[in-house]
Order: sequence, then C-alpha cells, then structure tokens
Amino acid sequence: METLNTISKRCSLKMHISNKPVEKEKINTILDAGRMAASARNNQPWRFIVVQDRQVIEQVTTAFSESNQVILDSPVILFVCARAMDDIIRDGREYYLFDVGMAVGNMLLAATDLGLVTHPMTAFDETRVKQVLHIPEDVRIVVATPLAYPREGSYDQASRERLLSRSRKGLDELVSSDHWSEPEPA
Amino acid sequence: METLNTISKRCSLKMHISNKPVEKEKINTILDAGRMAASARNNQPWRFIVVQDRQVIEQVTTAFSESNQVILDSPVILFVCARAMDDIIRDGREYYLFDVGMAVGNMLLAATDLGLVTHPMTAFDETRVKQVLHIPEDVRIVVATPLAYPREGSYDQASRERLLSRSRKGLDELVSSDHWSEPEPA
Repeated sequence: METLNTISKRCSLKMHISNKPVEKEKINTILDAGRMAASARNNQPWRFIVVQDRQVIEQVTTAFSESNQVILDSPVILFVCARAMDDIIRDGREYYLFDVGMAVGNMLLAATDLGLVTHPMTAFDETRVKQVLHIPEDVRIVVATPLAYPREGSYDQASRERLLSRSRKGLDELVSSDHWSEPEPA
Repeated sequence: METLNTISKRCSLKMHISNKPVEKEKINTILDAGRMAASARNNQPWRFIVVQDRQVIEQVTTAFSESNQVILDSPVILFVCARAMDDIIRDGREYYLFDVGMAVGNMLLAATDLGLVTHPMTAFDETRVKQVLHIPEDVRIVVATPLAYPREGSYDQASRERLLSRSRKGLDELVSSDHWSEPEPA
C-alpha cells in the first residue's frame, strides 16, 4: 500500500525547491523508473535529457514562462522527449504522448519516494529549448520538470496545505458503469 | 522504496487472468489512483468506464484484435477516454494523451499493489467500442485494460519469467547529459 500512499502524497511544488545537489544515484533511480514503464508494443519512445550544467540551465530557463522561472534554482532539470514516428499512431491518436505520460508518471512517483520535488511543465518555447539543447527537429519535447530537494523550512507546510486544498474531480464526475454517461451538471 | 519495487514488478500478463470477481473497493482504489494524477493545468481530462456486465463484455470484446480476445475472461474491463478539447494542445502536441498516460500509469501501479493483473491495450476498433459503450463522437478512447486476479497456478511462474526476460532499452540508449545526443548504433 506504500505505492498508493506515494500516489496520494505526490504534488507539484516548484515554489519550494532547494538548490542542494541531487545525488547521481537518485537521478538514475528516477530514470530507471521511467525506463520500466509500459508502452504500446513496448516501443519505449521516451528519451531523457538531464540538464545540470549551470550555464545550460540559465540558457534554457529563458524558454520558460514567467511563472516557471523558479527552475533556475533547481540543480537538475529533466526533459522528456520523443519522436511521434517511434510509436504507434491510431486514427490520429499519437501514442508517443500517452507512453511518455506513463514513463513520467513513474518518474514523478519515484522522485516522491526518494524525497524529491517535481513539477511537470509544458509552458515553454519548444523551438528555443531545441536550440539550447541541440534537439533535432523531428523530436518533440513533451515535458520538463525540476528534480530537487525540498526547501528546508517552507516545504513541509506548503505540501500539507497543497494536499489539503487539492482540487480533483470526484469519482462521480469521472466514472460510469458499463456505458458512457455524462455527469450531471453540479 | 516500496513504490520502486511496484514499478519494477508491474508487467502486462493478459494470458494469466482469472475470472474471480474483483471487489468494488479495489476497483475504486484504482480509479482513485488515476484521479490523483498530475495533469496539464490540472485539466483532469480522463474519464473512466468500468465494464462488468457480461453481455457488454461479450459485445465489446468483438472490437478487439485476435490476440486480445482473452479479455473475455476478465471480470472487469476498464476503458480510459478523454476529449482532446478538454486539455491543452501545444504546437500539435495533444496533452490529453499525455495526461491520460499519467493517470493510467498510476492505475497500473495501484492494481499491481493490490495484487491484480493489468494489460494496457490499444488494438481495438474505436468506432465499434464507441457503439457498444455509447461513447460520444468527440471522445477518444485511449486505452483499455482488464482488471483481474492472476490465475492460480500459472501466474507466478509466468510473471517471474516475464520479468527476467523483459526487454527494455538501457539508460545508455535513452539518456543524455545537458544536450541531446543520439545513442551510438549497437
């Protein structure tokens, strides 16, 4: 049941990261968790770029939205990329995105389990990130997240508050039995 | 570290499911794990259809490929759907697929943690599934999985073998530091 506990305590808290270095071993454990994810036909389309060089972090942060500038403080920024053609496409559903989602889900939980803070981000200028990280044109950048220790003093309180005030749709809004049904408007 | 253990022991083993009923409580715990996933701007685009009615299971199984006909034995088939317009789209990247991936990743781990077998499937005739489950045209069906107890006698051996022979790309093929790099051809 530890897994269910980790799932329920994971949260995105970019405002409370510290610049304390993250051990290579922990980074590898997180990457390993991503690598073990299921994928359509076992295509494993995901590719991981682990950015730790200060100069690269400074350059790449300029591609992020104002509200995401806090990643400048993170010792590690993880980028997860994939090529659409490395995975199946069914009636317009591009499964590289789904499969990357399953890998990233694993990595967020692994990081949580290791006491690290994550915050998946999609609000970046993809062209600019590609320039900085030398990413080929046909590769899509799906998501980036800081990997960082929580900031001492502020994190515990912030995560307690976040989890208490977390807004998620109820099962009554999301689940139907045997056939589709639209939830009643609240 | 229990989470990491669950991540490494999760596997897809549709050939070894039993028809033993799955408790409603366990199904709800799995749905809850999906519900707690991160999503872009907290959009939570996922919708879950829990199919348990024998007649519906028989009808919907006809929409699946030959190799997936084993789901006929499953007491539960979970369908995960979403509307693309319920989530962000950035430069053609449709994040409903990514977000559904994160939710499904959580659900696969929760099921594993509860001792259940899953097997995410994408090889189905979407139009036919929509007909059977009365799913509106603008909703996409991303994935289906049986939720079942493992078959007594055959499962333990099969999962040990599967995990031993599991083929995953190595970190050297997936990871680069600070900038993109293509792995050397093996």
